[in-house]
Amino acid sequence: MRLVTYRSDVNAAARLGAIVDDAVVDLERLGAATGFPLPASMLEFIDLGPQAVRQTSALLNEQRGKWPFGASMPVSNVKLLAPIPRPRKNIFGIGLNYVEHVAESSRTLDTSKDLPKEPVIFSKPPTSVIGPGDAIEHNKEVTQQLDWEIELAVIMGTRAKRVSESDALSYVFGYSVMIDMSARDCRRAGQWIYSKGQDTYAPFGPCIVTADEIPDPHTLNLSLTVNGVTKQSSNTRHMLFKVPTLIADISKAITLEPGDIIATGTPDGVGAGRSPQEWLWPGDIVHGQVEGIGELRHPVVAV
Amino acid sequence: MRLVTYRSDVNAAARLGAIVDDAVVDLERLGAATGFPLPASMLEFIDLGPQAVRQTSALLNEQRGKWPFGASMPVSNVKLLAPIPRPRKNIFGIGLNYVEHVAESSRTLDTSKDLPKEPVIFSKPPTSVIGPGDAIEHNKEVTQQLDWEIELAVIMGTRAKRVSESDALSYVFGYSVMIDMSARDCRRAGQWIYSKGQDTYAPFGPCIVTADEIPDPHTLNLSLTVNGVTKQSSNTRHMLFKVPTLIADISKAITLEPGDIIATGTPDGVGAGRSPQEWLWPGDIVHGQVEGIGELRHPVVAV
Repeated sequence: MRLVTYRSDVNAAARLGAIVDDAVVDLERLGAATGFPLPASMLEFIDLGPQAVRQTSALLNEQRGKWPFGASMPVSNVKLLAPIPRPRKNIFGIGLNYVEHVAESSRTLDTSKDLPKEPVIFSKPPTSVIGPGDAIEHNKEVTQQLDWEIELAVIMGTRAKRVSESDALSYVFGYSVMIDMSARDCRRAGQWIYSKGQDTYAPFGPCIVTADEIPDPHTLNLSLTVNGVTKQSSNTRHMLFKVPTLIADISKAITLEPGDIIATGTPDGVGAGRSPQEWLWPGDIVHGQVEGIGELRHPVVAV
Repeated sequence: MRLVTYRSDVNAAARLGAIVDDAVVDLERLGAATGFPLPASMLEFIDLGPQAVRQTSALLNEQRGKWPFGASMPVSNVKLLAPIPRPRKNIFGIGLNYVEHVAESSRTLDTSKDLPKEPVIFSKPPTSVIGPGDAIEHNKEVTQQLDWEIELAVIMGTRAKRVSESDALSYVFGYSVMIDMSARDCRRAGQWIYSKGQDTYAPFGPCIVTADEIPDPHTLNLSLTVNGVTKQSSNTRHMLFKVPTLIADISKAITLEPGDIIATGTPDGVGAGRSPQEWLWPGDIVHGQVEGIGELRHPVVAV
């Protein structure tokens, strides 16, 4: 399933939907019409666990094209929000997780040229999340070095503490796209949260593709353009620490919960690593995509 | 007011109370009996804003000692939980915020000996929070360098974005105590979240003292003992970046919200800074306190 959080009108509440063909199918309404109680929000749906995913997927297949009145509308008529508009906690980000990005970072930032021996974890607060198309804020009093990072995002489905690598993927609800915006000049004694955690610095979406449709998350092309010019182009196979390793490693010490988001790191091609360095400015358009999931397009605006 | 979250029985729900004399006064029950609707949780109460604080404080004064039947019980009969058992996001921690601690850290950790020019911000996930008396987990497969850090915690009361230092304290709901547990050998490429964000690494409580009772948060003694031996003893006046600066600085870029927690940094005397270095092990007892707020006492246990 391709699950979204959408709003049918600027004043309407955020609701849970599935994209089928060119329609958004409202899951709560579909469920109400078919005797199958489904929730109205993504987090409540994730909480229901894997059985609900299978049953809902079967329901969508069964009802496809003959949606109950009022349960579907054209995708073009809705506004997509971040699939989880308000995460329950910080996003977990992974730094230096593609080999070439480790190399480019060491040339221009303060990181080591050696490959990390263990995942490098940082966080972004939930206030950093924005949805598809929303503006990325550029505050010139805070940064002159606003940078892009396209990433595959993993959405956890079930509570995970000390899970093995071999079991780890069974804890995943699905996958999405996140752009890990980074103000390079806002690092503080090496800590990244102020650099990566500012408001609007986590463009997220457009949908969550459930894990059953992506059996191997390490075969996906991902890329990013700025004003139409390709800056990043790679494949998730080049991740240094793969998704099962990340989940096993984090959950050794930190309980992962349903709805938790792990942004798995970015390939090379960020602005800080280019010669000369390039930064984002108001008026720029950032466009990122991950194969099989979708794309995000965001204007940079002065605030 | 000294506000707590408490449970009257191991199976009872967490509820909001105020400590008055030797009683916990249940705010929702007090309100129900006096025609004053008050919520049952700390976060809902914080959301009501400063007027609710003033009115509730007046109500407690008026009713003191003649509590409605069922609205109060002896403190000794309840279990205190963390004042906010489940924060809505990461805790914001401040590193290297006491001069002597900057010095001791630079001798033995990987930090600079120069004083930071701006606050050093990191985060701890909400899953790291434990309440008074709860066990701090020691997982020997993850760390051999478990350390203590006693800190004053600031609880935000109202949404803050780009607030000035001169206005900043008016956004504070109150103050509490946090022990910023740190596994020194779990830093990753300089990032601290895996070191400081593990489950049980944020002992928090025992209460929140509302800001009206602490007009100046920079006059408070704070100290920590391990197995009864004093390890840290200082005063919040030695903070490098004071509370108004921290709020103004973070809110320049990151919106602070009601219920957000800022752990304001620790003075010198941590285990990593001692010669020889000292670490916590199962069986140890960590006891921390901040003047005018309260104390936390936690056993370290093997997991």
